[in-house]
Amino acid sequence: MAISYGKMVIIGAGKVGSAILNSVLRMNILDEIVVVNRNQKKALGEVLDASHTTAFAYSANANIHVGGYEECADAQIIVVTAGPSIQPGNSRDRMVLLEKNINVMNDIMEQITRYTREAIIIVVSNPLDILTYIAQKKFDYPANKIFGTGTLLDTARFNKMLGDLCGVDAKNVTGFVLGEHGSTSFIPWNTVNIVGVPFAEFEKQFELKEKLDKEKLLHDTKVIGLDIVELKGYTSSGVALSACRLIGSIVRNEKSVVPVSTVLSGQYGLTGAAMSLPCVISKNGIDRVLELPLDEQGKSDLQKCYEHLRTAIESVYSE
Amino acid sequence: MAISYGKMVIIGAGKVGSAILNSVLRMNILDEIVVVNRNQKKALGEVLDASHTTAFAYSANANIHVGGYEECADAQIIVVTAGPSIQPGNSRDRMVLLEKNINVMNDIMEQITRYTREAIIIVVSNPLDILTYIAQKKFDYPANKIFGTGTLLDTARFNKMLGDLCGVDAKNVTGFVLGEHGSTSFIPWNTVNIVGVPFAEFEKQFELKEKLDKEKLLHDTKVIGLDIVELKGYTSSGVALSACRLIGSIVRNEKSVVPVSTVLSGQYGLTGAAMSLPCVISKNGIDRVLELPLDEQGKSDLQKCYEHLRTAIESVYSE
Amino acid sequence: MAISYGKMVIIGAGKVGSAILNSVLRMNILDEIVVVNRNQKKALGEVLDASHTTAFAYSANANIHVGGYEECADAQIIVVTAGPSIQPGNSRDRMVLLEKNINVMNDIMEQITRYTREAIIIVVSNPLDILTYIAQKKFDYPANKIFGTGTLLDTARFNKMLGDLCGVDAKNVTGFVLGEHGSTSFIPWNTVNIVGVPFAEFEKQFELKEKLDKEKLLHDTKVIGLDIVELKGYTSSGVALSACRLIGSIVRNEKSVVPVSTVLSGQYGLTGAAMSLPCVISKNGIDRVLELPLDEQGKSDLQKCYEHLRTAIESVYSE
Amino acid sequence: MAISYGKMVIIGAGKVGSAILNSVLRMNILDEIVVVNRNQKKALGEVLDASHTTAFAYSANANIHVGGYEECADAQIIVVTAGPSIQPGNSRDRMVLLEKNINVMNDIMEQITRYTREAIIIVVSNPLDILTYIAQKKFDYPANKIFGTGTLLDTARFNKMLGDLCGVDAKNVTGFVLGEHGSTSFIPWNTVNIVGVPFAEFEKQFELKEKLDKEKLLHDTKVIGLDIVELKGYTSSGVALSACRLIGSIVRNEKSVVPVSTVLSGQYGLTGAAMSLPCVISKNGIDRVLELPLDEQGKSDLQKCYEHLRTAIESVYSE
Repeated sequence: MAISYGKMVIIGAGKVGSAILNSVLRMNILDEIVVVNRNQKKALGEVLDASHTTAFAYSANANIHVGGYEECADAQIIVVTAGPSIQPGNSRDRMVLLEKNINVMNDIMEQITRYTREAIIIVVSNPLDILTYIAQKKFDYPANKIFGTGTLLDTARFNKMLGDLCGVDAKNVTGFVLGEHGSTSFIPWNTVNIVGVPFAEFEKQFELKEKLDKEKLLHDTKVIGLDIVELKGYTSSGVALSACRLIGSIVRNEKSVVPVSTVLSGQYGLTGAAMSLPCVISKNGIDRVLELPLDEQGKSDLQKCYEHLRTAIESVYSE
Repeated sequence: MAISYGKMVIIGAGKVGSAILNSVLRMNILDEIVVVNRNQKKALGEVLDASHTTAFAYSANANIHVGGYEECADAQIIVVTAGPSIQPGNSRDRMVLLEKNINVMNDIMEQITRYTREAIIIVVSNPLDILTYIAQKKFDYPANKIFGTGTLLDTARFNKMLGDLCGVDAKNVTGFVLGEHGSTSFIPWNTVNIVGVPFAEFEKQFELKEKLDKEKLLHDTKVIGLDIVELKGYTSSGVALSACRLIGSIVRNEKSVVPVSTVLSGQYGLTGAAMSLPCVISKNGIDRVLELPLDEQGKSDLQKCYEHLRTAIESVYSE
Repeated sequence: MAISYGKMVIIGAGKVGSAILNSVLRMNILDEIVVVNRNQKKALGEVLDASHTTAFAYSANANIHVGGYEECADAQIIVVTAGPSIQPGNSRDRMVLLEKNINVMNDIMEQITRYTREAIIIVVSNPLDILTYIAQKKFDYPANKIFGTGTLLDTARFNKMLGDLCGVDAKNVTGFVLGEHGSTSFIPWNTVNIVGVPFAEFEKQFELKEKLDKEKLLHDTKVIGLDIVELKGYTSSGVALSACRLIGSIVRNEKSVVPVSTVLSGQYGLTGAAMSLPCVISKNGIDRVLELPLDEQGKSDLQKCYEHLRTAIESVYSE
Repeated sequence: MAISYGKMVIIGAGKVGSAILNSVLRMNILDEIVVVNRNQKKALGEVLDASHTTAFAYSANANIHVGGYEECADAQIIVVTAGPSIQPGNSRDRMVLLEKNINVMNDIMEQITRYTREAIIIVVSNPLDILTYIAQKKFDYPANKIFGTGTLLDTARFNKMLGDLCGVDAKNVTGFVLGEHGSTSFIPWNTVNIVGVPFAEFEKQFELKEKLDKEKLLHDTKVIGLDIVELKGYTSSGVALSACRLIGSIVRNEKSVVPVSTVLSGQYGLTGAAMSLPCVISKNGIDRVLELPLDEQGKSDLQKCYEHLRTAIESVYSE
């Protein structure tokens, strides 16, 4: 079945799925969005509410409806948000979701692959590195066409924090969070810069009153998502924009470089896991995976992250 | 205090307030947004989550933070979303919220008017026609600078429904829902058209299989919001875009004509209530209120709506 | 060859072609734009200059290059702007271009149809109703896939003029200019309204100081384009946005209703010419042609316009 | 006179002025644009043509008109594009324009400063570093409120070239062209990177077939503007977007970091000239000037550029 360009299927109509639905509509780049959800009433409510927004000036018309997995057959993009997400009071580690969500993901991939192997699948459900890896491997899905939002959101948070400290737009901060979308993510500090000013010179250039503390910055980046869960009960806005950023890159064939969780194919000599590395995203999915130059600290961080992910994978999946 | 153009205060960080926050950010037209909420933790969670979205390419930088009513002092726009909203299983009439929300609105207006009488206030809390009327009257707020989203949302819903039936973009449907944002709203059918094709010719022109039933269309328009409440537990997307439509018209000085709830000043010979009529919205707020030509049915509908609103007003407010 | 969605070919790199190139880039909805021009140097200059704009924040990446007609093979949209346009000091009638441009159009259609019959062709060259008609007929191009910008621009001009007079956004004016994109275009006054307020009530509703004069409004609408030619030497901005409006409707599958020049297939009992009538535009091209209800004046205007176009067609083309 | 936020005055209605007018309209962020031009007919033609574009869906309403310098009194932004620009067959050095344009700029500044010292002035006329310097000094205009588009355009061109070579979006290239908008501009290669991958690793990371040649890249960046002049007779699209990028940063208070030509106040120990360095742009104009760390080559390039500019300044201006 030929791809219907501009058609996207969202699996899951929870906080995140509905936030993606509403955010992506504001981009005016999709003309058909299907929401697949076990609770069809919830999906219908979201779909109706969202559909009314297209009647307002400056919002493009779009066909928004509920549907079943058969809608994947001609979809250009599928976004997977289904399964439980982290709750206030949780252990603050997305890994607690692993057991449940691995089954959820399994079921979803079985359904999707009945209909297509051509759509680009964006994994948002957590723990997303593990889910992305197993989904790709088990279903032999084209590796450039399935990836997770990964540390794209962590990167946004880090850039925003640093941009605010320095009094510049976050979009001018070059600095990726890499690795796991979770406790072992890391920042290759040697690559962090603002239009070429290296991190080490930020205090002087931006006349900061306090010294920048790398460990604190990384820690704050990691916990702010969990803090938001405690404060508002869940996260939605940031992760929705992460998905939208990828959707935009795909639909508009942008060749943007963003960190997404991709199954390793030898980067830094590693295989057997998915983790976030900077990837070039086009209408074909991932065009290229970049290997940032890591210093000794970076290499060690990467290794720890990898081992952490391998342990988790091995606990639930054998190849 | 001079107005800080591009600064908006949102009162209330519930489903609607946070939906407005997230939707308005996608417009890239405000540079400071303050969220005022009794539950500061909830507000902070929403603010943090939303602030991360500005780090993504194509999303403009903005200063998003929590604050108190003193932030209204130099705000260009204040959006009032506070107070309980209609719940699943309710009597399906926004009037049930009257008693509680009139006190909420009172408190809010007392706070706002301590700091400004220049900001444009957009009322979203329900029952919004009553709240808008009393707020304007009791606090003698400039009448062109306080208005409710009103039937702007009902109009979007009606246009979407009709557009879908006819196979055209809802934005090409000219057809306003007027009066109460509630059970007595009405449609002046003699004015409904698609680029000049009158409603009576829709069946023929668009080769519709079924006859259009005015009563059913009006009924469906009225209940779909309540249906969404039953389906997803609340409404948020549509009402958020209503507010955004107005914010855009104000910030960009658009002179758009949209139905908003405005305190009557003699239109159709009426005063003593607020209801939605087509208004020209600019950076000054309401530039002009239009009186659509009504046929006998329209006049009768208008009268019933007015009396319904007067009864409600009189039950809670004496001038 | 499969259509490459998001790919457009512009034929002609003159004032209009380059204005379309630059305007459509600002929409961020196409990822490949090819400019075909006899003068390759001019085309390359335009392409290079335009390509640099995609490097700025908020401008989407796109592959912009010069090329030959073979690029039409997988194009989604082809915009034809080639051939001379009306000059200052001309007789102020686009018909003076007929003889030259009919040959230009012929050559272009021969080239295009060597490669595709699936792309949607937007005709901008003048006199566009004649060119659109002959191109469709002579090359038996799918009638829903070839149409001219027609009176879409005249309509924008009329709406802007009327909106400014009434102090409202032009986008709230419902009122189409129909027929020829030229001297015999006409306005079906009985359908003109602002959100349902009929034209006859504009003076009162908008408190206009002067009476509106239909003949003057139509005359001003017709001559303003020619006035611009005298003032700046050519027109470009308005016509570029006309094309962009159609490109948006196609790429985003909007189902917008806009007046475009379409080959008549029995509307108002007429065939044998192309003229602008309100059309629903989607990714398939023209979904539906509407017949606005015309009063006696409108019917007479339509007939005169039709006869004028038929005379011109017969002078250069026999079926 | 209070600033009317959203109001901009463009001085000059030539190729560049009109390109800025048309491009900025697509941003939907200004509500009043005034064009000041000696040839009022040309200005009126541009204004009328552009004004029609606001009638199309998705284009915001705006009040676009011709006017005199008195319109500067409440303008938020003034863009200076007046004076001759470089022509095909010229010596390919913008300095040839110096003598004429210094007088043009003088006259313009005399006019502007009669009405305001609060508007932010964006200088686009060439040779812009000299004009910016003298305008600021001679009229003692607030230094953070007058700056030239400078190497922002050169930077866009360099980023686009490098992005295309590497197969990534130009917006992911961090790499500024600094110094003169002219023959002595330079690239601080030690700061060039793509999301943290340093320039030296581009060949390997992006699997480039040919070695990157710094001198050739800088040369190509410098001459491509002049090449466009030869090819299409002038440049307009790229420079218009440079101005728009700054307008957006100001109106939206973005705090973006972009290279603009600013009067030196001790950066790298230098004063007495204006040249492009990375600046943080907000609604206040320039918030901060950054000093990229330069290697020996960079320091030497900077010095040569500075001396070149000083020589030019001294030839026409004594303090």
